[in-house]
Amino acid sequence: MQELETYVAQHRERFLSELMSLLRFPSISTLPEHAADVRACAEWLCDHLALLAPTRLELFPTEGHPLVYARWEISPQAPTVLIYGHYDVQPPDPVELWDSPPFEPVLRDGRLYARGATDNKGQFFAHVKALEALVRLDRLPLNVILLVEGEEEIGSIHLRPFLETHPELLGCDAVLISDTALYRDDLPTLCYGLRGLCYLEVSVRTAAADLHSGVFGGVVDNPILVLAHILSGLRDGYGRITIPGFYDDVLEPTPEERQRLAELSPDEEELRHQLGAPCLFGELGYSVLERRWLRPTLDINGIIGGFTGTGAKTVLPAVASAKLSMRLVPHQRADDIARKTEAAIRALAPPTASVEIRVLHSANPVVIPLDSPPLHAAARALARVFGRSPVFVREGGTIPVVEWFTELFRVPVVLMGLGLETEGAHAPNEHFHVKNFLRGILASALFLQEYAHAKA
Amino acid sequence: MQELETYVAQHRERFLSELMSLLRFPSISTLPEHAADVRACAEWLCDHLALLAPTRLELFPTEGHPLVYARWEISPQAPTVLIYGHYDVQPPDPVELWDSPPFEPVLRDGRLYARGATDNKGQFFAHVKALEALVRLDRLPLNVILLVEGEEEIGSIHLRPFLETHPELLGCDAVLISDTALYRDDLPTLCYGLRGLCYLEVSVRTAAADLHSGVFGGVVDNPILVLAHILSGLRDGYGRITIPGFYDDVLEPTPEERQRLAELSPDEEELRHQLGAPCLFGELGYSVLERRWLRPTLDINGIIGGFTGTGAKTVLPAVASAKLSMRLVPHQRADDIARKTEAAIRALAPPTASVEIRVLHSANPVVIPLDSPPLHAAARALARVFGRSPVFVREGGTIPVVEWFTELFRVPVVLMGLGLETEGAHAPNEHFHVKNFLRGILASALFLQEYAHAKA
Repeated sequence: MQELETYVAQHRERFLSELMSLLRFPSISTLPEHAADVRACAEWLCDHLALLAPTRLELFPTEGHPLVYARWEISPQAPTVLIYGHYDVQPPDPVELWDSPPFEPVLRDGRLYARGATDNKGQFFAHVKALEALVRLDRLPLNVILLVEGEEEIGSIHLRPFLETHPELLGCDAVLISDTALYRDDLPTLCYGLRGLCYLEVSVRTAAADLHSGVFGGVVDNPILVLAHILSGLRDGYGRITIPGFYDDVLEPTPEERQRLAELSPDEEELRHQLGAPCLFGELGYSVLERRWLRPTLDINGIIGGFTGTGAKTVLPAVASAKLSMRLVPHQRADDIARKTEAAIRALAPPTASVEIRVLHSANPVVIPLDSPPLHAAARALARVFGRSPVFVREGGTIPVVEWFTELFRVPVVLMGLGLETEGAHAPNEHFHVKNFLRGILASALFLQEYAHAKA
Repeated sequence: MQELETYVAQHRERFLSELMSLLRFPSISTLPEHAADVRACAEWLCDHLALLAPTRLELFPTEGHPLVYARWEISPQAPTVLIYGHYDVQPPDPVELWDSPPFEPVLRDGRLYARGATDNKGQFFAHVKALEALVRLDRLPLNVILLVEGEEEIGSIHLRPFLETHPELLGCDAVLISDTALYRDDLPTLCYGLRGLCYLEVSVRTAAADLHSGVFGGVVDNPILVLAHILSGLRDGYGRITIPGFYDDVLEPTPEERQRLAELSPDEEELRHQLGAPCLFGELGYSVLERRWLRPTLDINGIIGGFTGTGAKTVLPAVASAKLSMRLVPHQRADDIARKTEAAIRALAPPTASVEIRVLHSANPVVIPLDSPPLHAAARALARVFGRSPVFVREGGTIPVVEWFTELFRVPVVLMGLGLETEGAHAPNEHFHVKNFLRGILASALFLQEYAHAKA
């Protein structure tokens, strides 16, 4: 560890300057006008990795943005760790709320400000620099695959087919990802569970065209009221989802897990204040962390219908639509929940309306067994770097690729978060703490050593 | 009548050409960039009226668009009829759906196509041409005030203060307005009732800013679900409004009125098909026309919240808002209903949300006694022009100015519709049937004669 620390300290300035080069690419995957920037970013990364003498290095084209693939092979007998990250970023809007331009990285108060700093360039680049240190010091203890995609922010649309069609490139014993968060600043954190997602769009129509509400109000049903009736019929006032069969497969938390979460429990009044909520909400009988991590939820993500401009327009709209999503927990399955939700919506719809339902997105929940060897190795590595044992958390969000690795390769995934929830991912003034970037480099290198040692 | 018919027949082409000149002004009151066009239209009208030798003619400025005022006085002892109309029009959007440019009037198949043709330039100009005929033939039988405003399409915002501050200019025995519709083509129609309106905006907030639905779903309430719960709590599935006290002042229709409406009853299946509704809707126990004209209704006119773009965004929105309006009937009062609605909304709101309510628009319902002398005079005039007795209808819409005339001047208002509901008011390809323009000229002139005769 001493040797690694010395290497990182010696090369700190260059590491930061390289990360800043990476952050200068506006690799916004969702905007077609930035396609060339996305590609340029991938090419820069390839050129950069070439300096580390990988056994194989390739920029795989997809129907969308390219995938960067690199492999360091020390021996066919050694275990293999796959490190995943993404080099694409969210759009910087609203740009006017940034204190400095989103693609001109700057250091302020120990933080590096730029779009992508924490999500995910800074986090995956820590692993790249860990690889550099191990390669340069001739200490790489196992085989490593680095897979960095350019479409995470648009649903990893071409990654799943790539995983399915290239098993020979991706065989591994464990996956390491830094795309979650430290539970608190300076508190090393391993995430062992993510909620799944079932996201639908519902559209309600009660007439062929908008009508005058004076002339036809009372004769044609109101699609917004129909939609309101449907949506409010999916959840009760106690936060319980009322879709028939919704809880059938939900695993109740064990007393041990509840105990572990209780120890991490935030101050509720402080949380309420921080979120600006008149009153915290949630399913009766479960704590805040249980509601965020262990319990399924239903949210309406958007709704629109009729006249939404300033002032009054007396229209009886023809159509209204909403986007709704449910966060799922083991052992719920996204496709089963989509079916049950669709049935519940149809049962709530009156004959005065025609209803269309589309599934936009699904992902199953994931829980990684707490006794998996790579998780233990990661815990030991983090303890050495942070000087304290990590906490084991789950998160309420969804990273579809985690389920794919789990399901397709049946290998444990280590979610070693280096960012903080307060670092503005997807928001203005995104930043990354330099201390966590440096800790991440050490933790990544030590993890590879610990894991190689455990498997030996 | 013969003399009038001859005059109209002789000057038919000129009348149409003058109306086309009036229609060429894009007098769109809501768009600031058209303010000069609105003014030019008012000035054209003043110049045009000056040819008819009014006793007084004035363009009254307001804080918005000007009011055209003209008065023909034959004797202080003669009764006075005030004719109201508006020279402003709705925006022509969507322009691409027009078959000919909205401000280049054209005649096709006996219809004059242009924005404002039926609403309201064509309709009020029929009265101007009736005045011309009576003046030229030296047959004007009473005093006439013509009041044409330029802000009807934006809520007549400066008309009410004008009415209140200029009683000396506006004293009259009856008001005549053509801004309603013939119930069917060729069926003369007098409207004796309009529904009132109470229009509110409700906004619900559950957090200071949008949150990630994975991270905070289950801890902060969802404002769209809260709003859906509130809105669906205002009306039951049988079309009955569940706001406490809402029906307290509603006058039940009399058996005679129900009978009269039953005779006008449309074919429900044909109506359903025409509207493209899966199934007609409405309050149990009332016919289609009763629901449209005699019963109060509640509609949500618009709703918006969260992510409404294409695809999926897993946001837990902070805010959602809706516009809702109720059509009112005698003896409901808009301010009382606003209070009751606000109380009902607050009672439905959970502690997890803060709710803001704003009243955007109110108008009381109006019913004109069927035994009023000007209504009888109008019926006789229409019968002579159309060759059949008019039907007496109510309408579901709201014309605030009708209530103001009724309330401020306590004079009966005659609503002599010359347009058809199918003529595209507020929609593309607006038009006006030339035959009804010409009938309107005759009916207006005959009405003035009949009413003068009755009052003599």
